[in-house]
Amino acid sequence: MKNLVAGIDVGERSTFCALVDEFGKIYATEKFSTNDYKSFNSFMDKVKTSVESLSRNLDEPHTLCAAGIGIPNGNYYTGEIENAPNLIWKGKLPFSQKLSSLLGMPVVVANDANAAAIGEMMYGGARGMKDFVLITIGTGLGSGIVVNGNVVNGYDGFAGEFGHICAQVNGRQCACGKKGCLECYASTSGIKKTFLELSKNNKVENALKDKKPEDITLSDISKAAKKGDSIAKQTFTETGNILGIALANLISIVSPEAIFINGSVARLGDQLLAPTKKALEANLMRLWKGKVKLLLSSIDSENAPLLGAAALAIKEMQKRSVVIERRRLV
Amino acid sequence: MKNLVAGIDVGERSTFCALVDEFGKIYATEKFSTNDYKSFNSFMDKVKTSVESLSRNLDEPHTLCAAGIGIPNGNYYTGEIENAPNLIWKGKLPFSQKLSSLLGMPVVVANDANAAAIGEMMYGGARGMKDFVLITIGTGLGSGIVVNGNVVNGYDGFAGEFGHICAQVNGRQCACGKKGCLECYASTSGIKKTFLELSKNNKVENALKDKKPEDITLSDISKAAKKGDSIAKQTFTETGNILGIALANLISIVSPEAIFINGSVARLGDQLLAPTKKALEANLMRLWKGKVKLLLSSIDSENAPLLGAAALAIKEMQKRSVVIERRRLV
Repeated sequence: MKNLVAGIDVGERSTFCALVDEFGKIYATEKFSTNDYKSFNSFMDKVKTSVESLSRNLDEPHTLCAAGIGIPNGNYYTGEIENAPNLIWKGKLPFSQKLSSLLGMPVVVANDANAAAIGEMMYGGARGMKDFVLITIGTGLGSGIVVNGNVVNGYDGFAGEFGHICAQVNGRQCACGKKGCLECYASTSGIKKTFLELSKNNKVENALKDKKPEDITLSDISKAAKKGDSIAKQTFTETGNILGIALANLISIVSPEAIFINGSVARLGDQLLAPTKKALEANLMRLWKGKVKLLLSSIDSENAPLLGAAALAIKEMQKRSVVIERRRLV
Repeated sequence: MKNLVAGIDVGERSTFCALVDEFGKIYATEKFSTNDYKSFNSFMDKVKTSVESLSRNLDEPHTLCAAGIGIPNGNYYTGEIENAPNLIWKGKLPFSQKLSSLLGMPVVVANDANAAAIGEMMYGGARGMKDFVLITIGTGLGSGIVVNGNVVNGYDGFAGEFGHICAQVNGRQCACGKKGCLECYASTSGIKKTFLELSKNNKVENALKDKKPEDITLSDISKAAKKGDSIAKQTFTETGNILGIALANLISIVSPEAIFINGSVARLGDQLLAPTKKALEANLMRLWKGKVKLLLSSIDSENAPLLGAAALAIKEMQKRSVVIERRRLV
């Protein structure tokens, strides 16, 4: 009989539940709107029902062992989410405790970016690596830092806020309250802002001059750059420059074997990777030049959060079984 | 009978050997000039002789269990030092293997800043902490980052080069080959450079105007600031600003419980700490504001490298005895 876990990816808009095995195979999945559930309790009931019905309706004989929840601001130590700016339920929300009592199994919670890093380690390009970083770039910039095989949670469980390091002193206003955070530059909206600023400051006509600024998408800028538009090309050079310097700093601190990029912005591929690599190499100490891999994640960015949540549950079960084994030996 | 370890601090000029117990008590110590030994082998023979004579001449009955070496560019994984810019012996130097065969006991090697962090955890203010950072500021800036009770060595053993993150894009030329590294600003020579630059750019007369630039010391600038000299005061504000922003970035990445400062520059005390704290707090995300302690190390900066090297040996012995215990259980 197969052992499966439930992976639960709670996003601002949508929540995904899935049953997953240790090889990353997804057996069943359900999606529902996060905000349809006006209270935290009704949302938790929905998650329970979803997981249980996915399990009941699965033909494959299996045992459901644990659940993992990946969620912005999720705290691995406490299993809680405290005042998440993007969720409609306020205060301290005991996700892990509540769902564990509803499902009758262990439930682990983590920040979505940290969960994605565990997913990369279990199912993606970081298999076999013990020291690496996963950067998820989309509407924001999240990071999961893995040191010696474990995600760095830090003292309070909130480590890995690499999107909020200062990339530009007195730079753009960030939603977090600070100025010049990396995610104000390296994110969909950040890249768009750079393009609009460069367009404004340059007399050269750009390929998107007939579009309203609010209608311009990352894909538009990407296409324009491919066609040779100088402003669009410069946009990616500047983004890569800021991101590359920040990553070089990160390497100086944790010295990873590789840095993986995932998230919707990763789909830009070499358009982002090439200028980032250039700036990264130019800003590395000699001992790291040409040595640290900068790679696209091998996990599809749509499935990454879900597989990350599942991997979180599997890693926790592995940890606990080691503890049980040790206890048996005593 | 007491268990003791040998702590060996290899510096560019001087090498210190000491016998230390698990409480940080130093029983005997010897200092000699590093460069008196023209070959690596003759230096290793001297270290062996020093440790053995310290042990032989000690009245206290004891067992010497292991040795720890703290040394710039020391690699914990390989036990080697490769092309250390400050040592006269070139190439790959197998410190750990060589000394272990000479002394007939386990020998562990680490970067001096990483060793100092282990010392802080075993003997200093970080006792009981599992997530903290120790920054050593003197002629350079070194760091030891501790995550979940262990020093972060990274993939290659060279993690913790926080002195070489980019603090100023296209800033001062660093000895490492890069520009704008943090240690070009937050170090004795960096602070002096800031003072000289500010003096040059300001019409205001400063308290040290009658001294030759090359004769001005950190202590002169410190005294001038205490007397109210505006350029000297601004020097510490600017240094604190650069260091504070860098530390806020480090907190976003590893979220430590505390940051300790050691090294000769730490003797400035509040003159450095106050402006650093101010910039640090101004650049932290809300969730960390007022929460991360910025403290002076409680270990005297002269003994810190030696005690760090000893702590390294003790921690390694503890790790090995856990492994032995586990093997016994199987």
